[in-house]
Amino acid sequence: MSGFEADERLARDSELLTKIGLCELRLMNDARWPWLVLVPQRADACEIFDLTPLDQTMLTFEINLVAEALKRTTDATKINVGALGNIVRQLHIHVIARSEGDPNWPGPVWGFGAAEAWDEDSKAAFTAKLLEKLSS
Amino acid sequence: MSGFEADERLARDSELLTKIGLCELRLMNDARWPWLVLVPQRADACEIFDLTPLDQTMLTFEINLVAEALKRTTDATKINVGALGNIVRQLHIHVIARSEGDPNWPGPVWGFGAAEAWDEDSKAAFTAKLLEKLSS
Repeated sequence: MSGFEADERLARDSELLTKIGLCELRLMNDARWPWLVLVPQRADACEIFDLTPLDQTMLTFEINLVAEALKRTTDATKINVGALGNIVRQLHIHVIARSEGDPNWPGPVWGFGAAEAWDEDSKAAFTAKLLEKLSS
Repeated sequence: MSGFEADERLARDSELLTKIGLCELRLMNDARWPWLVLVPQRADACEIFDLTPLDQTMLTFEINLVAEALKRTTDATKINVGALGNIVRQLHIHVIARSEGDPNWPGPVWGFGAAEAWDEDSKAAFTAKLLEKLSS
């Protein structure tokens, strides 16, 4: 993990929840959707194929672990997973819980409207439930 | 692969290029971006975590194989990878070549404007180059 540091914009737009093996697990500062971001702790990775095969497998495992925990936390209609990186080049993977009728449903979350701040109590409750599902 | 058939809308919106192990590799009928879709040939899979661990690993391998070949085919700025499925529930993974200044850059491709038909010659040239990069 030498040389790794979360990109400045990612650090500003999201909050570190925990570290799980390869990745930092972060929560986006946007209460409109339960929106997580996984950041592999590898300096200079931009594309998934920049990772070693072992890291790719680890990443797949961690994406699915988090996606499933998020599904069980929210009972969402669909989990959206995306690695875009058109703005922030540091490799990061979005894992978002989507439900019918949520903002911009069934369109994507990226580039839609403006972020809304979390209420601190809701954020604490969501985070506690997610971390519990992650470890059960 | 018993029981697998590509979803009706996926079949209408894209064209089968080849099959690579687990997935069908399809080209979207939209010339605005070089836009591929991988469809695991598994009936009833909606989320990546519905797949067995072996299939998940295969999928990761195939996504990265295709993403890297697409990068070498197009020399794009960034490869976007996404599994959304808010409209078509059958598990499918988008792999899209994005370049600065392309339609809706740096926003996402999903839900943006209307598809544009490929010119047959450009499509044939793109497909031939992609398939060659895939196997080299």
